[in-house]
Amino acid sequence: MGATSKQEFIDFFPTLVEDVLGELPSYDCSPESIERLRKVIDYNVAGGKMNRGLSVVDTTRILVGEENFTPEIKRKAFILGWSVEWLQAFFLVADDIMDASITRRGQPAWYRNEGVGLIAINDSFLLEAFIYRLFKKHFKQEPFYVDLLELLQDCTYRTELGQMIDLITAPEDDINLDRFSIEKHAYIVKYKTAYYSFYLPVAMSFLLCGYKAEDPIFKQAEEFLIPLGEYFQIQDDYLDCYGDPEHIGKIGTDIEDNKCSWMVVQALDAIARSGSKEQRQILEDNYGRKDQEKAAKVKALYRDLNIESVYLEYEERVGKNLLDQISEVKDPKLGQVFKAFFDKIYKRSK
Amino acid sequence: MGATSKQEFIDFFPTLVEDVLGELPSYDCSPESIERLRKVIDYNVAGGKMNRGLSVVDTTRILVGEENFTPEIKRKAFILGWSVEWLQAFFLVADDIMDASITRRGQPAWYRNEGVGLIAINDSFLLEAFIYRLFKKHFKQEPFYVDLLELLQDCTYRTELGQMIDLITAPEDDINLDRFSIEKHAYIVKYKTAYYSFYLPVAMSFLLCGYKAEDPIFKQAEEFLIPLGEYFQIQDDYLDCYGDPEHIGKIGTDIEDNKCSWMVVQALDAIARSGSKEQRQILEDNYGRKDQEKAAKVKALYRDLNIESVYLEYEERVGKNLLDQISEVKDPKLGQVFKAFFDKIYKRSK
Repeated sequence: MGATSKQEFIDFFPTLVEDVLGELPSYDCSPESIERLRKVIDYNVAGGKMNRGLSVVDTTRILVGEENFTPEIKRKAFILGWSVEWLQAFFLVADDIMDASITRRGQPAWYRNEGVGLIAINDSFLLEAFIYRLFKKHFKQEPFYVDLLELLQDCTYRTELGQMIDLITAPEDDINLDRFSIEKHAYIVKYKTAYYSFYLPVAMSFLLCGYKAEDPIFKQAEEFLIPLGEYFQIQDDYLDCYGDPEHIGKIGTDIEDNKCSWMVVQALDAIARSGSKEQRQILEDNYGRKDQEKAAKVKALYRDLNIESVYLEYEERVGKNLLDQISEVKDPKLGQVFKAFFDKIYKRSK
Repeated sequence: MGATSKQEFIDFFPTLVEDVLGELPSYDCSPESIERLRKVIDYNVAGGKMNRGLSVVDTTRILVGEENFTPEIKRKAFILGWSVEWLQAFFLVADDIMDASITRRGQPAWYRNEGVGLIAINDSFLLEAFIYRLFKKHFKQEPFYVDLLELLQDCTYRTELGQMIDLITAPEDDINLDRFSIEKHAYIVKYKTAYYSFYLPVAMSFLLCGYKAEDPIFKQAEEFLIPLGEYFQIQDDYLDCYGDPEHIGKIGTDIEDNKCSWMVVQALDAIARSGSKEQRQILEDNYGRKDQEKAAKVKALYRDLNIESVYLEYEERVGKNLLDQISEVKDPKLGQVFKAFFDKIYKRSK
């Protein structure tokens, strides 16, 4: 399997931007407002790692086979792939406002740009709406059109539910470790990240390849990809704490930001089991404070509690479970899809 | 024609709330998060004037005829009607954040409630997502399902485009009358309000009554309802300035809030034609300031410019045009639908 070059995927992006902007004169939009929307799109949709988008393309290539991966089906996979990136842009623009984030992808968060501010809320709505414009233009005639609309709506809904639980569990200005738990963390990770990042791209690819929404393959993919996505996010939480900043490209601040991270819910769980009031107090006094020394005390506590080895044991266990699942897949192409995801993620260091 | 009692429509609302909340356990939601979402819905969807929602029901009753207005079709019209109210809740929750509004429908704007704040952004997303859940549950088997999804997406998109132009034309903290114009005002009114408030309810009713999206009746309705909606909003702008606060239930603050109102764009137009630098200066010095005395000076200028009579002439003219359009409608039931809208709106005083 030759993976699609990222460059080819990137080069396809401008045609989708033109699709969306090109019909705006029929919505009476002035040239200035069209240029403003071009900026909204360029600033927020492009420039990510594009793993989600590319995985639609790579999955489709495996499922139809190299020989049947025609320019036509590739084009459709590109559109679907970009739609996931577009969806992510919708979420990120809004998340950055709600989290009061300063930067995103090495530039100021969109809402922090001159003349944007809370208008970014409406911009995020438009980013979502554009996806439906693209689908109408490119897929209205396809037998999978309704299934595609429902799939996107369902994954959007799940992400929003996950975001809600995240926001009410860990508001930055109201620290309360009683709200954190392993179950709450699992919910947030599954709903806020795993559905749209892992399940959605593969499910889109299934639709493109002719599977109907009722086909058991969707359930089978969900049962593999959701735990994989959960593991991916737990890695993220781990790397935020233990990754090499030079290597991962950012300095982790989950502790300072009062995040309901896998690390802290494991620490809380270990403390609850040991019953140590002293250790609980260390967390209470130091978690979620914008203070590097306090964050260092939390990290020292993690060390005392051996959270890193809890992580490494989890990683071994989840890796084994996922490989077992792959080995049980009857359809060799589906097994190949799962394995491709697994290989990209297992024991990654960034 | 017996109009549907508002009470009956209101009484139907809880079943829709249960539809949405009832499936949340299958999305792993805890009882607490379900109760939180119940509050989001109850606080924001119910309690409006419900003109939009009721107009789906009244339109359908006219189109199918009293004798065919079965409990089954009434139920569907209720669902569609409530979906418009739900859509409005999505917009209003977000608009109130973007406009920094203090109150809405006589209570604090949702985002101003304890523990809500910017989480309201995500709540607005969920309010939108719920509509698609309701449509999937109730209309997936209907032949008009895809047309309904596309109609809702299209009207949502238009509203968001109108909101964008409104936000960039009249940011509260950056007063620049050069950005205001009759054309800009017309765009905002048409896109931000008329499509979802006037066209959407009638178009939904058409779909329910079996018309296909390609049927010319949709275009015909658009050509009547968009100017009607424009007139409705211009009335709103007029009443904000000249209505009796006791009677309309609020004290108008469009001048203080730097709104791109019909009154001010007419004043600017009159000033541009007369070339009076002095009058332009009065507007420059007094518009968009949080100061009642300055607002009074703007109102005095409107009086000098005879804006009220410009309005009354406009009202006569648009009323005549709309009645002419109605008289040319061949389908008597469609004529009756248009006339019902016209009678509710023409020369209203609140």
